[in-house]
Amino acid sequence: MVVSLCDVARMVDGQLQGDGGIPITGADIIRDAQPGYITFADNARLASRLASCRASAVITPPDFRPEGIAFVTVPNVQQAFTRIVAFFRPPQQDHRVGVAATAVVSPTASLGHNVVVHDNAVIGDHVTVGDGTVIHSGVQIMAGCRLGRDAVLFPNVVLYENTVVGSRTLIHAGAVIGAYGFGYTTVAGRHQLSAQLGYVELGDDVEIGACTTIDRGTYGATVVGEGTKIDNHVMIAHNCRIGRHNVICSQVGIAGSTTTGDYVVMAGQVGIRDHVNIGDGVTIGAKAGVMNDIPPGATYVGIPATPERQQLLILAALQKLPELKKQLRTLQHTVVQLEQAAGSLTRQEAA
Amino acid sequence: MVVSLCDVARMVDGQLQGDGGIPITGADIIRDAQPGYITFADNARLASRLASCRASAVITPPDFRPEGIAFVTVPNVQQAFTRIVAFFRPPQQDHRVGVAATAVVSPTASLGHNVVVHDNAVIGDHVTVGDGTVIHSGVQIMAGCRLGRDAVLFPNVVLYENTVVGSRTLIHAGAVIGAYGFGYTTVAGRHQLSAQLGYVELGDDVEIGACTTIDRGTYGATVVGEGTKIDNHVMIAHNCRIGRHNVICSQVGIAGSTTTGDYVVMAGQVGIRDHVNIGDGVTIGAKAGVMNDIPPGATYVGIPATPERQQLLILAALQKLPELKKQLRTLQHTVVQLEQAAGSLTRQEAA
Amino acid sequence: MVVSLCDVARMVDGQLQGDGGIPITGADIIRDAQPGYITFADNARLASRLASCRASAVITPPDFRPEGIAFVTVPNVQQAFTRIVAFFRPPQQDHRVGVAATAVVSPTASLGHNVVVHDNAVIGDHVTVGDGTVIHSGVQIMAGCRLGRDAVLFPNVVLYENTVVGSRTLIHAGAVIGAYGFGYTTVAGRHQLSAQLGYVELGDDVEIGACTTIDRGTYGATVVGEGTKIDNHVMIAHNCRIGRHNVICSQVGIAGSTTTGDYVVMAGQVGIRDHVNIGDGVTIGAKAGVMNDIPPGATYVGIPATPERQQLLILAALQKLPELKKQLRTLQHTVVQLEQAAGSLTRQEAA
Repeated sequence: MVVSLCDVARMVDGQLQGDGGIPITGADIIRDAQPGYITFADNARLASRLASCRASAVITPPDFRPEGIAFVTVPNVQQAFTRIVAFFRPPQQDHRVGVAATAVVSPTASLGHNVVVHDNAVIGDHVTVGDGTVIHSGVQIMAGCRLGRDAVLFPNVVLYENTVVGSRTLIHAGAVIGAYGFGYTTVAGRHQLSAQLGYVELGDDVEIGACTTIDRGTYGATVVGEGTKIDNHVMIAHNCRIGRHNVICSQVGIAGSTTTGDYVVMAGQVGIRDHVNIGDGVTIGAKAGVMNDIPPGATYVGIPATPERQQLLILAALQKLPELKKQLRTLQHTVVQLEQAAGSLTRQEAA
Repeated sequence: MVVSLCDVARMVDGQLQGDGGIPITGADIIRDAQPGYITFADNARLASRLASCRASAVITPPDFRPEGIAFVTVPNVQQAFTRIVAFFRPPQQDHRVGVAATAVVSPTASLGHNVVVHDNAVIGDHVTVGDGTVIHSGVQIMAGCRLGRDAVLFPNVVLYENTVVGSRTLIHAGAVIGAYGFGYTTVAGRHQLSAQLGYVELGDDVEIGACTTIDRGTYGATVVGEGTKIDNHVMIAHNCRIGRHNVICSQVGIAGSTTTGDYVVMAGQVGIRDHVNIGDGVTIGAKAGVMNDIPPGATYVGIPATPERQQLLILAALQKLPELKKQLRTLQHTVVQLEQAAGSLTRQEAA
Repeated sequence: MVVSLCDVARMVDGQLQGDGGIPITGADIIRDAQPGYITFADNARLASRLASCRASAVITPPDFRPEGIAFVTVPNVQQAFTRIVAFFRPPQQDHRVGVAATAVVSPTASLGHNVVVHDNAVIGDHVTVGDGTVIHSGVQIMAGCRLGRDAVLFPNVVLYENTVVGSRTLIHAGAVIGAYGFGYTTVAGRHQLSAQLGYVELGDDVEIGACTTIDRGTYGATVVGEGTKIDNHVMIAHNCRIGRHNVICSQVGIAGSTTTGDYVVMAGQVGIRDHVNIGDGVTIGAKAGVMNDIPPGATYVGIPATPERQQLLILAALQKLPELKKQLRTLQHTVVQLEQAAGSLTRQEAA
């Protein structure tokens, strides 16, 4: 597909600066744009990266007028660029099918209006699905689940019995919601599984990443609060209560019965032990290992996790540790000599 | 559903203390119980948490008689509570179907008595399945697998060729058993995959968590011993031999050809390198990185993992490290002054 | 199955040394071989392990002639052993079916010659599949994907829209390619998902492990270069560009927009932050946490990752840290005594 830069400017209601006749063949980010492509730069700090970019034109905000390249200014750069990318690579989507002929829906399940169920999805007994929700191919929904409106379950998601999914919640492919909690009592050398009578409750506007797992509560709910976003490969164990609007990055693991407040942020590969409480607005750095409660608003990093300020001092000292070790040895040597000298002086005095 | 506390006491053969007429509408743990709910407290140390709980009644053991709340005593608190929860929220289960019409079972597969195969499960050539085993929807069982009796494979589990699954073994949704080992020889700049002729053998009474992966052996078996319990997102690489009755928490990774004894416990996010041997009864702390063999009965923590006692000393010293650095600097300063003083004294002596 | 050792030697064109009449009933590695089995030892350093092995015979290279056990020498030990294992345990494979009757293939999809589509796989609109590619049961391929020749997608793999898969690329069970990137803008306390217009592009000869996830680019491609091998449970975030012939072990997490050169090796559980660049030929040790760019050819380890040499010094010093702390205390004490002594001498001088 080829259009002129002038056409692109018109497409996004932008102000063109430069040759409107330049043919534009695609759109990509600065790093990846090819000659003939249009890219975007949403602030002037990108000027130097833009100078070495292969793109033929760029979308910018009104206050950034780059040199040496044709540009189109718009008030909302990302929105405009999204429109252009979608023009060059229109979203491919599997034709919506209502309920596909190959889907298996229990006669006791109840689907709202405009629900889409793709091929080979399986919907169990007594499941309810709200209006407009989309269930992709290969999704397995076990008995008694309740899904809100306009939710999306991507292919091969599994919901165990009684899972509750809020409205507009997205669950990515391969995620498993409601598997058994990992709790055992050891009797006569054999590990006996605890009760598994609970379920998982995901609030509205939650997002769950691919291959993420959230285990059911022992007797009641494991909860993920409204608006919380969870990346891929995250593990949330039984009985946890995750607050609202948390951001939980990839490969985080949260052990059983732990709670978090609202607006908690966890970077990648964080681990949190069981039965701790993380306050509102806490930030936890990548790979941290949390062993205790964290008060609201704090930033914790390290293994074991401590306040960031303290950890940065430790890390700085740690980088110097081999040097400290040498200095200590030198000092020991010096002190021995001083002792000998002092002994000799004292002996002279005594003499 | 509403029943009287008196009815609840009768349901679990318990001794009621307090107003039997209280209407009970649900059951949940202390943290989550609502007014009108019954909760449980299996020992007296929970008295203070119980005091601030919203529940209207509590199940306790005979020797714990809490104040200010109606209670029902029973010999086995958890068992009684399980019965009550199941009463208020009866297990939802997809109707058992024998072999569902949409399941695909190879004509050369052999199923025992009372095997249940849910919708869209696929059972390959020459697979054998023992009596009473349940295969949930979307499970994929490749050729030559052998499953014992009363095993349960939850939705979307994948078993590669020749996987052996013991009796009463549970495999949770999304787990992948028997994928290729990650072994390569690099020839002329290209990584060539090693032989992939082996398989995975899971013993009796094993549990495998959601999205856990266990790779096949190169030529023979990767083995998980009887009674071992494995949480979600665990990775066990090719040729490993995991002993009996291990407890392996979420996100642990065990590299190729490593072996463990019996009753080994690994906390979350542990990593173990290839070709090491972990003795019977070893405990490994969360996030530890194991680089060497560990003798039986030891507790190891840290990166690299060392005996716990040693690691605790290191961690304690590490928290003090910025302070140590300051003290060292102060001491250096003092020693310089002492040297100068000593030099001056010596010069005076010499004078 | 039982054959004579003489038959086994003939099977691999090997030179027999010892009793050719020994009955051979199986083949396994030294650790696991039973009496009656044949094993292999590809170099003389295995002599002592071989001495305590239960096997009845062994395959060796011509220059290793072990004592006390019958052996068969061949030029390529692993190749010969592979042939023997395959003889005793012939590969079980689900009969190839063309397109299975239960597979769902969009009428707008286009399949090459000799494509195999197993049961219940779903192939979406406008998907193209190259000659000889095998799509296992339960695989979900969304609209617009393009697959090369002779690729293999194991059961329950999910490809989101527009995923590109190179020729001879293997994707293991449960892997999810092309889920949404984890990027949000927080507006009025709510996290709003960024644009999700991109896709994933896997080069030729790539291997993707079980349950690994690779997220789509924001506007363009997340790329994995030709020949790169990725183990299970790896997370590669949106906009990453992974170079050619990388080896990425299990449970590694790479955050958004990070790039790697060619021949990069990452051990297990490494984490790499977003927007960093890893040079050609870099090696990153297990569990390392990479916070900054790494120059070509370097080996980095630790959290935060530093050059290996530096980190080894730090780790060595760290093991000694409790001892250092004690030595410092002793030294402080000594210096105090020296100060007192010096003060006393000075006072004597002054006197």
